[in-house]
Amino acid sequence: MIDKKETVTAAFVMIGDEILSGRTEDKNLNFLAKSLTEFGISLREVRVVPDIEEEIIKAVNEVRIKFDYVFTSGGIGPTHDDITALSIAKAFDDQLVQNKEATQILEHYYGAGNVNEARLKMAFVPKKASLLDNPVSSAPGFRIGNVFVMAGVPKIFQAMYKAAKKELVAGKKVQSLEIKTSFTESIIAKDLENLQNKYQQVTMGSYPFEGGTSLVFRSQDYDALENAVKEMTEVLERIKAN
Amino acid sequence: MIDKKETVTAAFVMIGDEILSGRTEDKNLNFLAKSLTEFGISLREVRVVPDIEEEIIKAVNEVRIKFDYVFTSGGIGPTHDDITALSIAKAFDDQLVQNKEATQILEHYYGAGNVNEARLKMAFVPKKASLLDNPVSSAPGFRIGNVFVMAGVPKIFQAMYKAAKKELVAGKKVQSLEIKTSFTESIIAKDLENLQNKYQQVTMGSYPFEGGTSLVFRSQDYDALENAVKEMTEVLERIKAN
Repeated sequence: MIDKKETVTAAFVMIGDEILSGRTEDKNLNFLAKSLTEFGISLREVRVVPDIEEEIIKAVNEVRIKFDYVFTSGGIGPTHDDITALSIAKAFDDQLVQNKEATQILEHYYGAGNVNEARLKMAFVPKKASLLDNPVSSAPGFRIGNVFVMAGVPKIFQAMYKAAKKELVAGKKVQSLEIKTSFTESIIAKDLENLQNKYQQVTMGSYPFEGGTSLVFRSQDYDALENAVKEMTEVLERIKAN
Repeated sequence: MIDKKETVTAAFVMIGDEILSGRTEDKNLNFLAKSLTEFGISLREVRVVPDIEEEIIKAVNEVRIKFDYVFTSGGIGPTHDDITALSIAKAFDDQLVQNKEATQILEHYYGAGNVNEARLKMAFVPKKASLLDNPVSSAPGFRIGNVFVMAGVPKIFQAMYKAAKKELVAGKKVQSLEIKTSFTESIIAKDLENLQNKYQQVTMGSYPFEGGTSLVFRSQDYDALENAVKEMTEVLERIKAN
């Protein structure tokens, strides 16, 4: 039996001037964060970088040695500003080559005579890459090493994540339990801190909302998680009774 | 007369396990990106890091030497998981001290007898910091060097940005013009690339949407911007006529 790694980590690199200028509101981060968490992979860092080759290379190379998986979004279309594939090839000291399978996919989708120079650009991926299926608009994403290169358009990003997921190995899932209380953070802060000190293996977050506080307990140790939540619930009842 | 810097840059560091786990959907990035763009500051990098001291210190120290301004969000509340102020103090080799002005603000807001230990925590900022007004819930953000430390709750983040803005010096605004066309990206890619090569001082982005493509031209050179848009419009009309 293969020993399952306790914690599997990931980073997300968004490539996109349009996010940084505010023109486009990101819709992918929350989708990816939720999906990875549910699957048993812990998203640990996110970066948004502009459409500049050296910035893309630097960001990807920094995170790919630090985390188990890296996902990128954006910059893999047919226009001149789509420089992700080339940047990723350079990050891996690899060459950008015309991929036979990708070419066939594009020919099948557009019709053999209709793959012009711009469309053909989307068939160029790093030599060492394998393709990620894109059932929405055919032009594939790709994987190279631990890096999954995906489109920025949310519908296509999600479809490519589905393809990527087949290749991911999850760790032990972080379970999460939430307690909502009408007490403000500062009323319960001391008790929460004491509990955090007692349960080091449970991460306790406190998030104010209009009318109260949401306490989020997260852990890979499910017994400790339940015990911590039980104790906190008792603490809240005690404060209420006073 | 003081010479205005052409381009003023910024980075945004979100501090928050809740963003990385997917529990909370970020609402601050697009607000900040839009606001800075409108004001004449170019957002160049974004990072999301977990509530871990060394990760916060590393991210802030990397971006604060690289960009003119840095904004952070999250982790300045009254609970144990709010470690931003201490982390920022350490990043600047500074000490966390009780700020007199912040203490008075909290006493005024909560009532002199009601500032318990947790609330008082929010009066501790780095020694070299100056405060950022928070008209929503009183507990201030702060500025140290070129770093503006703000709350994660969008309403408070926005209020603190308003306070921060008074201290920002803008560069030359990047103007942006958009052309929408029903042509797909690959039809216009070649012409767009030619135009990009001709107008190096204009950044041309191509973004597909359902039913067409949005071309976004951005520049600090307003004449070049208008000329480039005019030429592209003519190109599109020419393609349409064929």
